[in-house]
Amino acid sequence: MNELQDIFKHIFHQFSDETVALFSKGFIQKELKKGDYFLREGKRCNHLAFILKGAMICYYTKDGKQFIDEFSLDNEFITDYSGFLTHSPSNKYIQCLENCTIYVISNEILKNLYQIKSIELERLGRIMAEQLYLQWHEKSKSLLMDNATERYLKLIQNRPKLPQRVPQHLIAKYLGITPESLSRIRKVAFQ
Amino acid sequence: MNELQDIFKHIFHQFSDETVALFSKGFIQKELKKGDYFLREGKRCNHLAFILKGAMICYYTKDGKQFIDEFSLDNEFITDYSGFLTHSPSNKYIQCLENCTIYVISNEILKNLYQIKSIELERLGRIMAEQLYLQWHEKSKSLLMDNATERYLKLIQNRPKLPQRVPQHLIAKYLGITPESLSRIRKVAFQ
Repeated sequence: MNELQDIFKHIFHQFSDETVALFSKGFIQKELKKGDYFLREGKRCNHLAFILKGAMICYYTKDGKQFIDEFSLDNEFITDYSGFLTHSPSNKYIQCLENCTIYVISNEILKNLYQIKSIELERLGRIMAEQLYLQWHEKSKSLLMDNATERYLKLIQNRPKLPQRVPQHLIAKYLGITPESLSRIRKVAFQ
Repeated sequence: MNELQDIFKHIFHQFSDETVALFSKGFIQKELKKGDYFLREGKRCNHLAFILKGAMICYYTKDGKQFIDEFSLDNEFITDYSGFLTHSPSNKYIQCLENCTIYVISNEILKNLYQIKSIELERLGRIMAEQLYLQWHEKSKSLLMDNATERYLKLIQNRPKLPQRVPQHLIAKYLGITPESLSRIRKVAFQ
Protein backbone atom coordinates (compact mmCIF):
# COMPACT_ATOMS: atom_id res chain seq x y z
CA MET A 1 0.00 0.00 0.00
CA ASN A 2 2.91 2.36 0.71
CA GLU A 3 3.95 2.07 -2.93
CA LEU A 4 0.55 3.37 -4.04
CA GLN A 5 0.58 6.13 -1.43
CA ASP A 6 3.96 7.33 -2.72
CA ILE A 7 2.67 7.48 -6.31
CA PHE A 8 -0.51 9.30 -5.23
CA LYS A 9 1.63 11.82 -3.31
CA HIS A 10 3.15 12.78 -6.66
CA ILE A 11 -0.11 12.80 -8.60
CA PHE A 12 -2.08 14.70 -5.93
CA HIS A 13 0.86 16.78 -4.71
CA GLN A 14 -1.34 19.72 -3.72
CA PHE A 15 -3.03 17.65 -1.00
CA SER A 16 -1.93 16.90 2.55
CA ASP A 17 -0.31 13.55 3.46
CA GLU A 18 -3.37 12.72 5.59
CA THR A 19 -5.77 13.15 2.66
CA VAL A 20 -3.58 11.11 0.31
CA ALA A 21 -3.25 8.39 2.96
CA LEU A 22 -7.03 8.26 3.49
CA PHE A 23 -7.63 8.09 -0.28
CA SER A 24 -4.94 5.41 -0.80
CA LYS A 25 -6.34 3.22 1.99
CA GLY A 26 -9.59 2.87 0.02
CA PHE A 27 -7.79 0.83 -2.68
CA ILE A 28 -7.06 -2.90 -2.75
CA GLN A 29 -4.49 -4.63 -4.96
CA LYS A 30 -5.48 -7.10 -7.68
CA GLU A 31 -3.56 -9.14 -10.24
CA LEU A 32 -5.07 -9.70 -13.69
CA LYS A 33 -3.70 -11.85 -16.52
CA LYS A 34 -3.34 -10.80 -20.16
CA GLY A 35 -6.76 -11.24 -21.78
CA ASP A 36 -8.70 -10.92 -18.49
CA TYR A 37 -11.61 -8.48 -18.39
CA PHE A 38 -11.83 -5.74 -15.78
CA LEU A 39 -15.30 -4.88 -17.14
CA ARG A 40 -17.73 -6.38 -19.65
CA GLU A 41 -20.61 -4.75 -21.52
CA GLY A 42 -23.90 -5.02 -19.59
CA LYS A 43 -22.22 -5.21 -16.18
CA ARG A 44 -22.31 -2.38 -13.67
CA CYS A 45 -18.98 -0.65 -13.21
CA ASN A 46 -18.61 -0.29 -9.46
CA HIS A 47 -14.84 0.16 -9.38
CA LEU A 48 -12.24 2.69 -10.37
CA ALA A 49 -8.83 1.14 -11.15
CA PHE A 50 -5.34 2.55 -10.97
CA ILE A 51 -2.84 0.59 -13.10
CA LEU A 52 0.39 0.10 -11.17
CA LYS A 53 1.91 -1.96 -13.99
CA GLY A 54 0.38 -3.16 -17.22
CA ALA A 55 -1.65 -2.10 -20.24
CA MET A 56 -5.40 -2.14 -20.74
CA ILE A 57 -7.75 -1.43 -23.62
CA CYS A 58 -11.19 0.05 -23.37
CA TYR A 59 -13.61 -0.54 -26.27
CA TYR A 60 -17.22 -0.62 -27.40
CA THR A 61 -18.85 -3.01 -29.86
CA LYS A 62 -21.65 -2.09 -32.25
CA ASP A 63 -23.09 -4.26 -35.03
CA GLY A 64 -20.19 -6.69 -34.55
CA LYS A 65 -17.59 -3.94 -35.00
CA GLN A 66 -15.05 -2.94 -32.35
CA PHE A 67 -14.59 0.78 -31.56
CA ILE A 68 -11.54 1.54 -29.44
CA ASP A 69 -12.12 4.20 -26.86
CA GLU A 70 -8.83 4.35 -25.00
CA PHE A 71 -5.64 2.60 -23.93
CA SER A 72 -4.30 2.93 -20.38
CA LEU A 73 -0.79 2.16 -19.17
CA ASP A 74 1.21 2.22 -15.90
CA ASN A 75 0.24 4.96 -13.44
CA GLU A 76 -3.04 5.78 -15.15
CA PHE A 77 -6.60 5.50 -13.89
CA ILE A 78 -9.13 3.47 -15.85
CA THR A 79 -12.84 2.83 -15.45
CA ASP A 80 -16.14 3.39 -17.20
CA TYR A 81 -16.40 6.70 -15.37
CA SER A 82 -19.89 7.38 -16.79
CA GLY A 83 -21.21 4.05 -15.52
CA PHE A 84 -19.29 4.56 -12.28
CA LEU A 85 -21.03 7.92 -11.74
CA THR A 86 -24.52 6.96 -12.94
CA HIS A 87 -24.67 3.30 -11.74
CA SER A 88 -26.07 2.32 -15.13
CA PRO A 89 -25.00 -0.91 -16.89
CA SER A 90 -21.84 -0.35 -18.89
CA ASN A 91 -21.71 -0.40 -22.65
CA LYS A 92 -17.96 -0.91 -22.81
CA TYR A 93 -15.32 -3.56 -22.28
CA ILE A 94 -12.07 -3.02 -20.37
CA GLN A 95 -9.54 -5.79 -21.02
CA CYS A 96 -5.88 -6.46 -20.14
CA LEU A 97 -3.38 -6.29 -23.03
CA GLU A 98 -0.61 -7.46 -20.62
CA ASN A 99 -0.51 -9.05 -17.16
CA CYS A 100 -1.58 -6.19 -14.90
CA THR A 101 -1.12 -5.18 -11.28
CA ILE A 102 -3.92 -2.81 -10.42
CA TYR A 103 -5.38 -1.10 -7.36
CA VAL A 104 -9.15 -0.76 -7.23
CA ILE A 105 -11.50 1.37 -5.17
CA SER A 106 -15.24 0.72 -5.04
CA ASN A 107 -17.85 3.36 -5.71
CA GLU A 108 -19.22 2.79 -2.21
CA ILE A 109 -15.88 3.39 -0.51
CA LEU A 110 -15.21 6.50 -2.61
CA LYS A 111 -18.67 7.86 -1.68
CA ASN A 112 -17.96 7.15 1.98
CA LEU A 113 -14.68 9.07 1.65
CA TYR A 114 -16.60 12.04 0.23
CA GLN A 115 -19.01 11.81 3.19
CA ILE A 116 -16.39 11.96 5.94
CA LYS A 117 -16.51 15.74 5.84
CA SER A 118 -13.02 16.35 4.62
CA ILE A 119 -13.04 19.31 2.28
CA GLU A 120 -9.75 18.05 0.79
CA LEU A 121 -11.28 14.71 -0.22
CA GLU A 122 -14.14 16.51 -1.96
CA ARG A 123 -11.56 18.70 -3.68
CA LEU A 124 -9.61 15.64 -4.78
CA GLY A 125 -12.82 14.26 -6.29
CA ARG A 126 -13.44 17.56 -8.08
CA ILE A 127 -9.91 17.69 -9.48
CA MET A 128 -10.12 14.06 -10.64
CA ALA A 129 -13.40 14.84 -12.47
CA GLU A 130 -11.90 18.03 -13.97
CA GLN A 131 -8.83 16.15 -15.22
CA LEU A 132 -10.99 13.46 -16.81
CA TYR A 133 -13.08 16.20 -18.44
CA LEU A 134 -9.94 17.78 -19.90
CA GLN A 135 -8.78 14.46 -21.38
CA TRP A 136 -12.17 13.75 -22.94
CA HIS A 137 -12.61 17.25 -24.23
CA GLU A 138 -9.26 17.08 -26.02
CA LYS A 139 -10.17 13.70 -27.45
CA SER A 140 -13.61 14.79 -28.60
CA LYS A 141 -12.13 17.91 -30.25
CA SER A 142 -9.57 15.79 -32.05
CA LEU A 143 -12.26 13.37 -33.30
CA LEU A 144 -14.23 16.35 -34.61
CA MET A 145 -11.43 18.20 -36.39
CA ASP A 146 -8.32 16.11 -36.98
CA ASN A 147 -7.53 13.59 -39.69
CA ALA A 148 -5.84 10.24 -38.94
CA THR A 149 -2.29 11.59 -39.48
CA GLU A 150 -2.88 14.49 -37.08
CA ARG A 151 -4.42 12.16 -34.49
CA TYR A 152 -1.42 9.79 -34.76
CA LEU A 153 1.08 12.65 -34.35
CA LYS A 154 -0.81 13.88 -31.26
CA LEU A 155 -0.85 10.32 -29.89
CA ILE A 156 2.92 9.84 -30.14
CA GLN A 157 3.54 13.35 -28.83
CA ASN A 158 1.24 13.03 -25.80
CA ARG A 159 1.79 9.34 -25.07
CA PRO A 160 5.17 8.34 -26.56
CA LYS A 161 5.27 4.93 -24.84
CA LEU A 162 1.99 3.77 -26.30
CA PRO A 163 3.25 2.51 -29.70
CA GLN A 164 5.82 0.27 -27.93
CA ARG A 165 3.20 -1.31 -25.67
CA VAL A 166 0.13 -1.60 -27.90
CA PRO A 167 -0.02 -3.72 -31.09
CA GLN A 168 -0.04 -1.65 -34.30
CA HIS A 169 -3.33 -3.14 -35.56
CA LEU A 170 -5.07 -1.84 -32.41
CA ILE A 171 -3.57 1.63 -32.83
CA ALA A 172 -4.79 1.59 -36.44
CA LYS A 173 -8.27 0.60 -35.27
CA TYR A 174 -8.16 3.35 -32.61
CA LEU A 175 -7.41 5.88 -35.39
CA GLY A 176 -10.14 4.39 -37.59
CA ILE A 177 -7.73 3.41 -40.39
CA THR A 178 -6.23 0.22 -41.85
CA PRO A 179 -2.86 -1.12 -40.58
CA GLU A 180 -1.48 -0.33 -44.09
CA SER A 181 -2.53 3.32 -43.81
CA LEU A 182 -0.90 3.50 -40.37
CA SER A 183 2.36 2.15 -41.83
CA ARG A 184 2.28 4.89 -44.50
CA ILE A 185 1.60 7.58 -41.85
CA ARG A 186 4.47 6.24 -39.69
CA LYS A 187 6.86 6.31 -42.65
CA VAL A 188 6.05 9.96 -43.35
CA ALA A 189 6.10 10.89 -39.64
CA PHE A 190 9.54 9.35 -39.00
CA GLN A 191 11.24 10.52 -42.22
CA MET B 1 -30.65 37.59 -8.56
CA ASN B 2 -33.56 35.77 -6.85
CA GLU B 3 -34.62 34.44 -10.23
CA LEU B 4 -31.22 32.77 -10.69
CA GLN B 5 -31.22 31.45 -7.14
CA ASP B 6 -34.61 29.79 -7.74
CA ILE B 7 -33.35 28.10 -10.89
CA PHE B 8 -30.15 26.93 -9.18
CA LYS B 9 -32.26 25.50 -6.32
CA HIS B 10 -33.81 23.18 -8.89
CA ILE B 11 -30.57 22.29 -10.64
CA PHE B 12 -28.58 21.77 -7.44
CA HIS B 13 -31.50 20.43 -5.39
CA GLN B 14 -29.27 18.22 -3.24
CA PHE B 15 -27.57 21.29 -1.74
CA SER B 16 -28.63 23.54 1.15
CA ASP B 17 -30.25 26.94 0.51
CA GLU B 18 -27.16 28.61 2.02
CA THR B 19 -24.80 26.92 -0.45
CA VAL B 20 -27.02 27.72 -3.44
CA ALA B 21 -27.34 31.34 -2.25
CA LEU B 22 -23.55 31.67 -1.86
CA PHE B 23 -23.00 30.17 -5.32
CA SER B 24 -25.69 32.34 -6.94
CA LYS B 25 -24.27 35.53 -5.42
CA GLY B 26 -21.06 34.99 -7.38
CA PHE B 27 -22.89 35.63 -10.68
CA ILE B 28 -23.63 38.94 -12.38
CA GLN B 29 -26.21 39.54 -15.09
CA LYS B 30 -25.27 40.56 -18.65
CA GLU B 31 -27.20 41.28 -21.81
CA LEU B 32 -25.75 40.27 -25.17
CA LYS B 33 -27.14 40.95 -28.64
CA LYS B 34 -27.54 38.41 -31.44
CA GLY B 35 -24.13 38.08 -33.12
CA ASP B 36 -22.16 39.23 -30.04
CA TYR B 37 -19.26 37.08 -28.91
CA PHE B 38 -18.99 35.78 -25.36
CA LEU B 39 -15.52 34.41 -26.24
CA ARG B 40 -13.12 34.64 -29.17
CA GLU B 41 -10.25 32.35 -30.18
CA GLY B 42 -6.95 33.43 -28.60
CA LYS B 43 -8.59 35.10 -25.59
CA ARG B 44 -8.46 33.66 -22.11
CA CYS B 45 -11.78 32.32 -20.91
CA ASN B 46 -12.12 33.63 -17.36
CA HIS B 47 -15.89 33.28 -17.06
CA LEU B 48 -18.50 30.57 -16.82
CA ALA B 49 -21.90 31.64 -18.17
CA PHE B 50 -25.41 30.46 -17.36
CA ILE B 51 -27.92 31.28 -20.10
CA LEU B 52 -31.14 32.57 -18.55
CA LYS B 53 -32.70 33.19 -21.97
CA GLY B 54 -31.19 32.84 -25.41
CA ALA B 55 -29.19 30.55 -27.68
CA MET B 56 -25.44 30.37 -28.18
CA ILE B 57 -23.12 28.46 -30.48
CA CYS B 58 -19.66 27.24 -29.64
CA TYR B 59 -17.28 26.48 -32.51
CA TYR B 60 -13.66 26.07 -33.61
CA THR B 61 -12.07 27.11 -36.87
CA LYS B 62 -9.29 25.24 -38.66
CA ASP B 63 -7.88 25.97 -42.13
CA GLY B 64 -10.78 28.36 -42.73
CA LYS B 65 -13.36 25.70 -41.89
CA GLN B 66 -15.88 25.98 -39.05
CA PHE B 67 -16.33 22.98 -36.71
CA ILE B 68 -19.36 23.23 -34.43
CA ASP B 69 -18.76 21.97 -30.95
CA GLU B 70 -22.03 22.66 -29.19
CA PHE B 71 -25.21 24.70 -28.96
CA SER B 72 -26.52 25.98 -25.62
CA LEU B 73 -30.03 27.19 -24.83
CA ASP B 74 -32.00 28.59 -21.84
CA ASN B 75 -31.01 27.20 -18.43
CA GLU B 76 -27.73 25.70 -19.65
CA PHE B 77 -24.16 26.50 -18.68
CA ILE B 78 -21.65 27.48 -21.37
CA THR B 79 -17.94 28.23 -21.32
CA ASP B 80 -14.64 26.95 -22.68
CA TYR B 81 -14.36 24.78 -19.57
CA SER B 82 -10.88 23.54 -20.58
CA GLY B 83 -9.56 27.08 -20.92
CA PHE B 84 -11.45 28.07 -17.77
CA LEU B 85 -9.69 25.28 -15.81
CA THR B 86 -6.22 25.60 -17.35
CA HIS B 87 -6.06 29.40 -17.88
CA SER B 88 -4.70 28.82 -21.38
CA PRO B 89 -5.81 30.93 -24.37
CA SER B 90 -8.98 29.56 -25.89
CA ASN B 91 -9.16 27.94 -29.29
CA LYS B 92 -12.90 28.34 -29.61
CA TYR B 93 -15.54 30.95 -30.28
CA ILE B 94 -18.77 31.32 -28.31
CA GLN B 95 -21.32 33.51 -30.08
CA CYS B 96 -24.97 34.50 -29.55
CA LEU B 97 -27.50 33.09 -32.04
CA GLU B 98 -30.24 35.20 -30.37
CA ASN B 99 -30.32 38.15 -27.95
CA CYS B 100 -29.22 36.58 -24.68
CA THR B 101 -29.66 37.27 -20.97
CA ILE B 102 -26.84 35.51 -19.19
CA TYR B 103 -25.34 35.31 -15.71
CA VAL B 104 -21.56 35.05 -15.48
CA ILE B 105 -19.19 34.06 -12.71
CA SER B 106 -15.45 34.68 -12.92
CA ASN B 107 -12.82 32.01 -12.39
CA GLU B 108 -11.44 34.07 -9.51
CA ILE B 109 -14.76 34.28 -7.69
CA LEU B 110 -15.43 30.56 -8.19
CA LYS B 111 -11.97 29.74 -6.80
CA ASN B 112 -12.65 32.01 -3.81
CA LEU B 113 -15.92 30.14 -3.23
CA TYR B 114 -14.00 26.84 -3.21
CA GLN B 115 -11.58 28.33 -0.68
CA ILE B 116 -14.16 29.43 1.88
CA LYS B 117 -14.03 26.00 3.47
CA SER B 118 -17.54 24.93 2.65
CA ILE B 119 -17.50 21.23 1.86
CA GLU B 120 -20.81 21.70 0.01
CA LEU B 121 -19.32 24.25 -2.40
CA GLU B 122 -16.46 21.86 -3.19
CA ARG B 123 -19.05 19.13 -3.76
CA LEU B 124 -21.02 21.43 -6.05
CA GLY B 125 -17.82 21.99 -8.06
CA ARG B 126 -17.21 18.23 -8.23
CA ILE B 127 -20.76 17.51 -9.39
CA MET B 128 -20.57 20.26 -12.02
CA ALA B 129 -17.30 18.75 -13.37
CA GLU B 130 -18.81 15.23 -13.30
CA GLN B 131 -21.91 16.38 -15.20
CA LEU B 132 -19.77 18.09 -17.84
CA TYR B 133 -17.68 14.92 -18.12
CA LEU B 134 -20.83 12.84 -18.71
CA GLN B 135 -22.02 15.20 -21.47
CA TRP B 136 -18.65 15.13 -23.22
CA HIS B 137 -18.21 11.42 -22.85
CA GLU B 138 -21.57 10.80 -24.49
CA LYS B 139 -20.68 13.21 -27.27
CA SER B 140 -17.26 11.72 -27.87
CA LYS B 141 -18.73 8.18 -27.95
CA SER B 142 -21.32 9.30 -30.47
CA LEU B 143 -18.65 10.93 -32.68
CA LEU B 144 -16.68 7.66 -32.57
CA MET B 145 -19.46 5.22 -33.34
CA ASP B 146 -22.60 6.84 -34.75
CA ASN B 147 -23.42 7.91 -38.29
CA ALA B 148 -25.11 11.25 -39.07
CA THR B 149 -28.65 9.80 -38.91
CA GLU B 150 -28.04 8.25 -35.51
CA ARG B 151 -26.49 11.49 -34.24
CA TYR B 152 -29.49 13.51 -35.48
CA LEU B 153 -31.97 11.12 -33.83
CA LYS B 154 -30.07 11.37 -30.53
CA LEU B 155 -30.02 15.16 -30.87
CA ILE B 156 -33.80 15.49 -31.27
CA GLN B 157 -34.39 12.92 -28.54
CA ASN B 158 -32.08 14.54 -26.00
CA ARG B 159 -32.65 18.18 -26.96
CA PRO B 160 -36.04 18.40 -28.71
CA LYS B 161 -36.14 22.23 -28.64
CA LEU B 162 -32.86 22.62 -30.51
CA PRO B 163 -34.15 22.26 -34.11
CA GLN B 164 -36.70 25.05 -33.47
CA ARG B 165 -34.08 27.47 -32.16
CA VAL B 166 -31.04 26.75 -34.33
CA PRO B 167 -30.92 27.24 -38.14
CA GLN B 168 -30.92 23.98 -40.10
CA HIS B 169 -27.64 24.75 -41.90
CA LEU B 170 -25.87 24.98 -38.52
CA ILE B 171 -27.35 21.68 -37.35
CA ALA B 172 -26.17 20.12 -40.63
CA LYS B 173 -22.69 21.52 -40.04
CA TYR B 174 -22.76 20.21 -36.45
CA LEU B 175 -23.52 16.73 -37.82
CA GLY B 176 -20.83 17.08 -40.48
CA ILE B 177 -23.26 16.75 -43.39
CA THR B 178 -24.77 18.97 -46.09
CA PRO B 179 -28.14 20.72 -45.52
CA GLU B 180 -29.54 18.48 -48.31
CA SER B 181 -28.47 15.32 -46.45
CA LEU B 182 -30.08 16.67 -43.28
CA SER B 183 -33.36 17.24 -45.17
CA ARG B 184 -33.26 13.62 -46.35
CA ILE B 185 -32.58 12.37 -42.78
CA ARG B 186 -35.44 14.52 -41.42
CA LYS B 187 -37.86 13.16 -44.04
CA VAL B 188 -37.03 9.58 -43.03
CA ALA B 189 -37.07 10.39 -39.29
CA PHE B 190 -40.50 12.04 -39.38
CA GLN B 191 -42.20 9.58 -41.74
